Amino acid sequence: MSVDTLATRGLVCPAPAAEPGRVQLGHGSGGKMSAALLAERFLPHLDNPALAQLGDAAVLTLGGESIALSTDTFVVHPLEFPGGNIGTLAANGTLNDLAMMGARPRALSAGFVLEEGLPFDVLDRVVAALGGAARAAGVAVATGDTKVVERGKADGLYLNTSGIGLVHPAFRPAPDRVRAGDAVLVSGPLGRHGIAILAARGGIDFEVELESDSAYLGPLVERLREALGEDVHALRDPTRGGLASTLNEIAGASDVGIVLREGTIPVPEAVAGACEMLGFDPLYVANEGVLAAFVPAARAAEALAALQGHPLGREAAVIGRVVADHPRMVVLDTAIGGTRIVDLLPGDQLPRIC
Amino acid sequence: MSVDTLATRGLVCPAPAAEPGRVQLGHGSGGKMSAALLAERFLPHLDNPALAQLGDAAVLTLGGESIALSTDTFVVHPLEFPGGNIGTLAANGTLNDLAMMGARPRALSAGFVLEEGLPFDVLDRVVAALGGAARAAGVAVATGDTKVVERGKADGLYLNTSGIGLVHPAFRPAPDRVRAGDAVLVSGPLGRHGIAILAARGGIDFEVELESDSAYLGPLVERLREALGEDVHALRDPTRGGLASTLNEIAGASDVGIVLREGTIPVPEAVAGACEMLGFDPLYVANEGVLAAFVPAARAAEALAALQGHPLGREAAVIGRVVADHPRMVVLDTAIGGTRIVDLLPGDQLPRIC
Repeated sequence: MSVDTLATRGLVCPAPAAEPGRVQLGHGSGGKMSAALLAERFLPHLDNPALAQLGDAAVLTLGGESIALSTDTFVVHPLEFPGGNIGTLAANGTLNDLAMMGARPRALSAGFVLEEGLPFDVLDRVVAALGGAARAAGVAVATGDTKVVERGKADGLYLNTSGIGLVHPAFRPAPDRVRAGDAVLVSGPLGRHGIAILAARGGIDFEVELESDSAYLGPLVERLREALGEDVHALRDPTRGGLASTLNEIAGASDVGIVLREGTIPVPEAVAGACEMLGFDPLYVANEGVLAAFVPAARAAEALAALQGHPLGREAAVIGRVVADHPRMVVLDTAIGGTRIVDLLPGDQLPRIC
Repeated sequence: MSVDTLATRGLVCPAPAAEPGRVQLGHGSGGKMSAALLAERFLPHLDNPALAQLGDAAVLTLGGESIALSTDTFVVHPLEFPGGNIGTLAANGTLNDLAMMGARPRALSAGFVLEEGLPFDVLDRVVAALGGAARAAGVAVATGDTKVVERGKADGLYLNTSGIGLVHPAFRPAPDRVRAGDAVLVSGPLGRHGIAILAARGGIDFEVELESDSAYLGPLVERLREALGEDVHALRDPTRGGLASTLNEIAGASDVGIVLREGTIPVPEAVAGACEMLGFDPLYVANEGVLAAFVPAARAAEALAALQGHPLGREAAVIGRVVADHPRMVVLDTAIGGTRIVDLLPGDQLPRIC
């Protein structure tokens, strides 16, 4: 199930066309262009301690409670795909962002932008999936808003979900709490969501049908919390930009280096095959039902057992370690003894995947 | 400053083209079609006690605290207009929704959908306005998300803001707490936002330049709370669909009738003139810096004084009363002794105003 060679092969990544002074598609990629947009266009105007943490959710003190607040807008194309639709994604995505900050999700909001002409039957399936995924996680869609824009001013529908949750007092995973000596784990195989979306766009015929891995990861987080408590240093779900982008963000936030070990990273055969055909690197393909966890190496086996004890974590693996060398850099130790830098991409391998 | 005759004149409201089974522009109007969309397409899948209240925000118990959660997506066209831009609107709009539920806002999230090709200078002004309006209200934009869609898949940018706030334990205004015997107040003159947006779209030359009234209403709410406490039965900001739609919603939620008195409703000359020219009724034009308040008639004078003591409420007025007769119906007593029903419109007078 693990594929090594792909990650070391040449990566086809068309450089985005330069159009100075304007938003480009690559700014939505989760890669270097996204980071630059955030640093140059947003943070100067919105600067505050909560936002500066750049966690998956902000953690705020309201009265006597620690409350996490998270937001995510979903613009995936197509709206429906094997394994779910934009509603599934919008529920699980925001719930996962809360869970990654150690919060137990308590409520979601839903903000729809509907394009004139959207068939009601599509809308019904999306709303049903949103409601179903929220209910499955024990959370209510407690408030909402709907706007309608003229034909040609959206792509069927866009859906923002925001969520709030209660942060557990003795469990505070955060992107800046990772330390040299930590082990890096993933809870499952990489790349299923991104490749499923690509296949659903048609025009490419993969031999095996892949489903999006979209899932609520709260139960895995709960197991890690019970097993390791505060020794869970950081959690993150590698969505847009894939595992490579997530690890780069963590390395930056904690000022550490990360070393991945080739041969240990789980990638399904179908994802590996599709990536090989397309020249993609599975490390950069989006996931919607996988988490990366950072725990002290001495407790990695316990963390692995905790993850593997749940169906969502059956294929969990320890894939690397955190080092003091080369801070802010992620590298891959290859099977033949070499080392490759796993950098942020400038823009997209695959746009509009979430 | 008050205009009576307009409200009793013929209303030009083109019936939306029927396109069965699909979303139409009128579904975003805040009128009857919006209500039907909510009842038929959303509530069946998302039903829960918080959502069923249909307040401007959901009020939830998290740990030991009452927390309000609100969301609103802004799709206004054009993005910039006299008195502000979509960023101003997105901050004040969601902060006001929290304030209307008696909450003190504590944090906002911002979810941007950017269209490829959006000039950075426009984005910068929007983000600066969002940050500035949030700061002015003492609130941080604590978390955010940005997606980019291809050219022709949005209209420059769309912006969702969600917000959380702490609900004051002894102050619980809610749409279903209005009682016969209450007085109806508005905090200021009607229709400035909707008409300013229409003028900014060009093609119509009004003699007087109007600015959007977009403003954070928290200080007015705070004054009402200090003066009347729990006797503030309900608060609502009449945005999309205008005062008429807001009053119909309140009448429905509290199962009461509302009687407005012609000649008491403040409307600026410029709004009145534009509405007369266009055949609009100012009661249905959007506001972004006005609130309607319901308090026992015996305390109306105190409430009026509380509002008028703040610059935003200088032109506040008592405009009507709540009755047990004709529940769920809003009527206007005209100066000549007649009565006109002020119903929900089916669709829009004016689309994409917020």
